Amino acid sequence: MRSIITISREFGSGGREIGKKLSERLNIPFYDKELLEMASKQSGICEELFYRNDESHSNSLLYSLVMGTYPLSSDGKIHPNMPLNHKLFLAQFDTIKKIAEQGPCVIVGRCADYVLKDHKNVINFFINSDMQNKKKRILERYDIEKDKVRDFIKKTDKNRANYYNYYSDMKWGEAKNYDLCINSSRIGIDGAVDLMVTYIDVREKHLDKE
Amino acid sequence: MRSIITISREFGSGGREIGKKLSERLNIPFYDKELLEMASKQSGICEELFYRNDESHSNSLLYSLVMGTYPLSSDGKIHPNMPLNHKLFLAQFDTIKKIAEQGPCVIVGRCADYVLKDHKNVINFFINSDMQNKKKRILERYDIEKDKVRDFIKKTDKNRANYYNYYSDMKWGEAKNYDLCINSSRIGIDGAVDLMVTYIDVREKHLDKE
Repeated sequence: MRSIITISREFGSGGREIGKKLSERLNIPFYDKELLEMASKQSGICEELFYRNDESHSNSLLYSLVMGTYPLSSDGKIHPNMPLNHKLFLAQFDTIKKIAEQGPCVIVGRCADYVLKDHKNVINFFINSDMQNKKKRILERYDIEKDKVRDFIKKTDKNRANYYNYYSDMKWGEAKNYDLCINSSRIGIDGAVDLMVTYIDVREKHLDKE
Repeated sequence: MRSIITISREFGSGGREIGKKLSERLNIPFYDKELLEMASKQSGICEELFYRNDESHSNSLLYSLVMGTYPLSSDGKIHPNMPLNHKLFLAQFDTIKKIAEQGPCVIVGRCADYVLKDHKNVINFFINSDMQNKKKRILERYDIEKDKVRDFIKKTDKNRANYYNYYSDMKWGEAKNYDLCINSSRIGIDGAVDLMVTYIDVREKHLDKE
């Protein structure tokens, strides 16, 4: 087992739990929100800001165009007037790169598939689920009224999609960006983990043959 | 094994070969273009018309609105002025339904996942692939100039997407429509078949538990 696993996931699909279980089965480190704390330590930017802006993109492209504040200036260095969101993204970008250098691991969300797209041993999973299952899962875990859960899910996924589509040149949730997309409601959390273990095995054997 | 397998696929991804091999491994019938001949026999519409219009949608919605030629009249019967494309779609729709009634099988393309969406034991796969692999595969199989192959692939997939998006209420190639999406270039044709066999096993066990 030599692969770095990234997991993109719909809100309520169980992607985090699947990733955690997969990392335990493979006995490799797991990063989800843990990544935010690391990015804060490495960048010196206050940890709370990472949590508050996690996987959402509130500064519009228009705003950054008007302000002339692109992520990088022409010499490739961080622009002093860069909006906060871009600074947070770049800090996470660096952290993900550093984590991947240390060997096999599971990273959930935060455009990790895009950040590591030139890395050789990366496997990109996408976990989705039927709305009914997502609603059930979120209601069990969040203190939210039943008639508001659907909107909550849609809004959270919209944020994730905006964040991903803005920083990558790809479209969140489109099958062609990922190695394998799994609907977790059809095979369950443990079924998804079993399938991913099989996939990693098949994939590494295929790479050896090439 | 009790599942009906549908395979949607990018052009050049090897979806047909994967489906054929899967059907042989599972010892169940396989339908790809075979479906067109059956639809022709059942509907009485000339077979050549099915081949010429296969998975493409040239009559625009605007056209059918202007002509007042919707797929079905208010009593649910085929409208005598229905455009040819709609007649062909409905004939294939009926054929797919009949095939599914006969038990486990593999059906490639032709919106079979949409046609069978209310069927209990259906598993919907989507096969995609990297452009480089698709080009290589198409060049080996079609008499086409090297500098035209990319456009040929894009155009064929655009036709498939238009056909699917028009007749279903879903978007072709979006992970959330399928149970499992596999990038065949990452694990090879045989790897994809192996994974699908594992998936079917995991899925049927999960259904038994529910």
